[in-house]
Amino acid sequence: MSENPLHLLMNPQSIATVGASNNWQKMGTMQSLSILKDGFPGKFYPIHPKEKVVLGHRAYRSVESLPEAPDLAMLVVPTNQVISLFESFGKIGTKRAIVISAGFKEIGAAGKNLENKLTEVAQKYGMRFLGPNCMGIINSQLPLNLTVSVLDKRPGYLGMATQSGTYITQTLDYLRKRGIRFSKAISVGNEANIDIVDALEYLGEDKSTRAIILYIEGLRRGRHFIEVAQKITPHKPVLAQYVGGSASGKRASKSHTGAMAGPDILYDGIFKQAGIIRLHSIEDLYAHGWTLATQPPLKGNRLGVVTHSGGPGTAISHTADRGGMIVPPFSEGLQKRIRQHIAVHASSANPVDMTFTTDTQLLTQTIPQLVMESKEVDGVIIHGPMGSSWIKETYPHVGNLIDISLDKLVEFLDSMDLSEMVSLPWKYEIPLAISCFSGRDDNYVKAYEDHDIPAFDSPEKAARAMVSLLRHKEIRDRKAIVAPKLPRKNKKAAVLIQEAMEKGQKALDEYQGKQILSAYGIPVTREILVQTEKEAAMAAETIGFPVVVKACCWQIMHKTGEGLLALNVQTQADVQKRFRSIRKAVGSDVPILIQEQIAGSREFVIGMTRFPGFGPCLLFGLGGIFTEAFADTTFRAAPLSLTEAREMIADIRAKKLTGPFRKMPAVDKAKLCSAIQTVGFIGLLHPEIAEIDLNPVLIEDDRPVVVDALMLLSPFP
Amino acid sequence: MSENPLHLLMNPQSIATVGASNNWQKMGTMQSLSILKDGFPGKFYPIHPKEKVVLGHRAYRSVESLPEAPDLAMLVVPTNQVISLFESFGKIGTKRAIVISAGFKEIGAAGKNLENKLTEVAQKYGMRFLGPNCMGIINSQLPLNLTVSVLDKRPGYLGMATQSGTYITQTLDYLRKRGIRFSKAISVGNEANIDIVDALEYLGEDKSTRAIILYIEGLRRGRHFIEVAQKITPHKPVLAQYVGGSASGKRASKSHTGAMAGPDILYDGIFKQAGIIRLHSIEDLYAHGWTLATQPPLKGNRLGVVTHSGGPGTAISHTADRGGMIVPPFSEGLQKRIRQHIAVHASSANPVDMTFTTDTQLLTQTIPQLVMESKEVDGVIIHGPMGSSWIKETYPHVGNLIDISLDKLVEFLDSMDLSEMVSLPWKYEIPLAISCFSGRDDNYVKAYEDHDIPAFDSPEKAARAMVSLLRHKEIRDRKAIVAPKLPRKNKKAAVLIQEAMEKGQKALDEYQGKQILSAYGIPVTREILVQTEKEAAMAAETIGFPVVVKACCWQIMHKTGEGLLALNVQTQADVQKRFRSIRKAVGSDVPILIQEQIAGSREFVIGMTRFPGFGPCLLFGLGGIFTEAFADTTFRAAPLSLTEAREMIADIRAKKLTGPFRKMPAVDKAKLCSAIQTVGFIGLLHPEIAEIDLNPVLIEDDRPVVVDALMLLSPFP
Repeated sequence: MSENPLHLLMNPQSIATVGASNNWQKMGTMQSLSILKDGFPGKFYPIHPKEKVVLGHRAYRSVESLPEAPDLAMLVVPTNQVISLFESFGKIGTKRAIVISAGFKEIGAAGKNLENKLTEVAQKYGMRFLGPNCMGIINSQLPLNLTVSVLDKRPGYLGMATQSGTYITQTLDYLRKRGIRFSKAISVGNEANIDIVDALEYLGEDKSTRAIILYIEGLRRGRHFIEVAQKITPHKPVLAQYVGGSASGKRASKSHTGAMAGPDILYDGIFKQAGIIRLHSIEDLYAHGWTLATQPPLKGNRLGVVTHSGGPGTAISHTADRGGMIVPPFSEGLQKRIRQHIAVHASSANPVDMTFTTDTQLLTQTIPQLVMESKEVDGVIIHGPMGSSWIKETYPHVGNLIDISLDKLVEFLDSMDLSEMVSLPWKYEIPLAISCFSGRDDNYVKAYEDHDIPAFDSPEKAARAMVSLLRHKEIRDRKAIVAPKLPRKNKKAAVLIQEAMEKGQKALDEYQGKQILSAYGIPVTREILVQTEKEAAMAAETIGFPVVVKACCWQIMHKTGEGLLALNVQTQADVQKRFRSIRKAVGSDVPILIQEQIAGSREFVIGMTRFPGFGPCLLFGLGGIFTEAFADTTFRAAPLSLTEAREMIADIRAKKLTGPFRKMPAVDKAKLCSAIQTVGFIGLLHPEIAEIDLNPVLIEDDRPVVVDALMLLSPFP
Repeated sequence: MSENPLHLLMNPQSIATVGASNNWQKMGTMQSLSILKDGFPGKFYPIHPKEKVVLGHRAYRSVESLPEAPDLAMLVVPTNQVISLFESFGKIGTKRAIVISAGFKEIGAAGKNLENKLTEVAQKYGMRFLGPNCMGIINSQLPLNLTVSVLDKRPGYLGMATQSGTYITQTLDYLRKRGIRFSKAISVGNEANIDIVDALEYLGEDKSTRAIILYIEGLRRGRHFIEVAQKITPHKPVLAQYVGGSASGKRASKSHTGAMAGPDILYDGIFKQAGIIRLHSIEDLYAHGWTLATQPPLKGNRLGVVTHSGGPGTAISHTADRGGMIVPPFSEGLQKRIRQHIAVHASSANPVDMTFTTDTQLLTQTIPQLVMESKEVDGVIIHGPMGSSWIKETYPHVGNLIDISLDKLVEFLDSMDLSEMVSLPWKYEIPLAISCFSGRDDNYVKAYEDHDIPAFDSPEKAARAMVSLLRHKEIRDRKAIVAPKLPRKNKKAAVLIQEAMEKGQKALDEYQGKQILSAYGIPVTREILVQTEKEAAMAAETIGFPVVVKACCWQIMHKTGEGLLALNVQTQADVQKRFRSIRKAVGSDVPILIQEQIAGSREFVIGMTRFPGFGPCLLFGLGGIFTEAFADTTFRAAPLSLTEAREMIADIRAKKLTGPFRKMPAVDKAKLCSAIQTVGFIGLLHPEIAEIDLNPVLIEDDRPVVVDALMLLSPFP
């Protein structure tokens, strides 16, 4: 494995910038000021055609006049200057660049051309670069801040890779106010060279990064993305927001970085496949990411809740429950220990509801410690710590009755030693989240945030972050994903496909399709293709009654409801009658398929389709004629290990149908998984097949059997 | 209609409090300080056994020594004093009370007894009261603040009724910091007398309340709740959070106010029935409530987005799209007008993405005005207004290069006239929401919030609030709900049920059940109950082949898979064979039902079940043997108008099945709705029937036919 290009790019010893001046309103200036003021320890070379000194540093007239080849070049210049500058930096031996300049692929064809040229120049000199149209990087360990915004001085643990630069610039102040800090952050821009998959891989290897968040509008190396993520997610949490899947989102993101968007349901599936926790807002992405980056891992699903107000306790319980956690009633022993500290009408069960109290010590220290040391829970949420914010709020009312000034009171509160309180999660190795309607103007909230315990401004948010910790526990507990070995290409199948294409077929007929499935070991109905009534009757006899009689011709893609299909045909006479009526309905001497009638009422669908950036993707779901109405399907990218296939089966709403159900036995999952996996192999081995639709796959007793098969051929194999 | 008891309680001219002293740490004192300091214009009578003066007001030794009967009594005293105080206030003629004291129903049986006594005393004197175990009220118009917290001085428009007092006390500071203000707020506590339905009705009538939010842990007058809400929601938005439906939430809320919780899916349904927008966090409840209280109504689903950063624009579009909005590309004309103001590589389509700029005037005024006056959208979201917050953040970096001090800069920004910007929504009657990562320390955010335009700290939140505006548009557009007229009780049905109960039946057998359905006009299968093989054969002949042969006996509640049911029986001989085999399987001379075989592949379920607090509730969903696996059902409370029944049918995921589907015609919705409605009538007219389960209801061509029916009888009719 070649070294990730971001290792050097994120850790340069020298940086040259083009576009910085002494005009503070220029982006290049602002970014250079971030380099200088936020503590970059290396060398800084501003390049400027006229100025002798830029931001207090000697300026160089040209790339050629630099005293050395800098490790990193940053370009914040008009679009038309970028390529010649690349040439110059390439010639002197600079190997990494960041292109902030916009006006490339995102503006259309002309820009796309320019971007291609940029890539070519870089390739010529062995340069790797971020952008164009990106907003820079942050490495809080070095430190190095290459954005227009100001960095929090304390190093962080959260790694971010984003297809929108806004999320590592405009939000820095927002994050600082919540105590959330990046380890490394990377704006990938148009991804002309280094892309979000490289960034993910880099953050996975980075020791200072304890959790990774991704903002995604589309993926061009979808399969790589999954494989890289699968290596990271068993030990380091990865969370992602995807916004390209809706009609409007897709259009907006296209005009933005020209990313490649796929349907929402595809990303739902591939995130699950990759072990990535999907979230639906940037707020959750930051906050849950930070929770996973800072808190000890959750070891089970039992949540303890400590509060002084009933509503938030109930809301936390409800939200956690919806996310798969339980809020178990505490043991009698623990409740007895808790009751020593709380009012008679207060509740010791779980949630512990102390009812209205201003004894914050009890709420934040005494009770949580009792709960944690009991080992009866795996995670704890405290709602309601309020110190100085409460005093500040109520002082206008109660001040007259108190002898101390507000300033003195606040000063006293601010000087409180809360070190024991903020050490609880690490002392007991139990994750803690705080819910509180106050912000950092409260001494408790500030203490929590300053010690990397996440504080949320509403109870449901704390509960949902805890649920993300549970999701990561499930991901850690996943069976290891071992990439499956692709079988050899089946010659018979290849010949069959080639012949069909030579005949100009746009699809395989059902009989051909099933021969291919059969060649790869997927169980299909026994069936015989016939041309005459006599053959039909003989075939039915061979197969055994009842049989199915169907028209078989690649042009007929949907047989139900067209009079081209007869189920449950019981007699020879009836077979012949159906043979005639089908031919009449078609209006030609179409071949007829005589097929065994499968008895089974559980119907599934297995499909394969190709999405740009992903190659063949698999679909599994509830099948039969109502497939479309049920819309109960899930996607994964091929190839699929059997473990992943099993997760896929468990990912539909009607998954109960695959277990023992009423008097039916559990579906043979090994066979069903193997069939799904093999459809993926067929997609990979035969790029001529554009789409596969196996529907229904009926369950006979416990055995899946493909009853109908449609395979579309690609016009551009 | 008698006057709502809250009219007087929320608008007293005089208040007596018991429990206030000069000790500021007592709840009663804090609440009295709120009365006094937050501007209550009426008379205030503290009652105290020892003090002569309380909080600067003359104190009275007892209720009896008061100079007049106060309009309102507030009790913040130990539990055991409440009842005798009620007696005293009752005797002097006080008609309204608020009981803050806890220790009643929420602590168990003893408390429940006490609460009953309290209710009796109140009834004796014609007193109406809030609580016990509540946290007071707020009337920002009077003004009157009866909570422990400090009220925002500016009157508000948002009405709240809550089963958790926390949400109108602990959150006041939180709300003030977001510009959100109550018109009226009511903590209902244990609801021993005045309950949340009264509060909803009151807020519905209250002219200063423009939107209503409800925090609910359970409803005891569910049906009343729906009827009251249905009168309000066509003209005033009602939003609710319900947290009692999960196992943990239910337990937590029971220990809290002893509210009555039902399953989550029931509340999903009854909120839809009531026209209430359901939300899942207190943050959304406040923020969406405030948006609906302040912004002009949304007239369509077209959203315009104006931003200077791609990511947030895409995230807003994606989120709005998921909620049913569209972000339509702007006309060429409008785009041309926009392009005059933005950079070449910026996007004028929609979202308008100006790309990085500090020209906030353009972002907040020029472009939004162009978009609004075009009439091409129904709502607008602006992402990214930043003024003083941006300066404050970047000043440490760029300060050296600027001649002006930070204070001067901020002062300048704070003095900017932004009045035109904040008048946009009212000028064009188009709702506006702001997304911005800054808080109120920014002059733009502050201007928006101070002028009642909601500002959200993440893009998705602004989009979701806009989606709630769309939900209310849909609710306004609902057909008027006219309460249906209950039919007369059918005598034959009543006799049949009585006879069955007299025989000790715990359920009706299928034949009996269908006779009842038939008596009320619900279409059922033609069928004949037989005792002998000969009768069976004759019955089959009468009905016509194919037929269904079934065991029919109330003890046999589920026939599938037990060998007690034969479908599609084609011949007389086969009928007789099945007759014998079923009797053999049962092991007794069970009556046998010969039934027409319905041809149809669309299967639904209609059910009736009774939930405490709601009476008979109706279920509709996907039916057949997989009902449980599909779990695609929805609930409503009976009685149901045909309009509500039609909404119910449209509320399942597989709703496509009721339309024309493949070669099948659309289901006759009038017949299906009538069947659902009638099942509700049966539930209301016959309280002896505990549950009804009609599954499957098959669709023959377009006509629904009940194929199987189970009716459980109540052990306590």
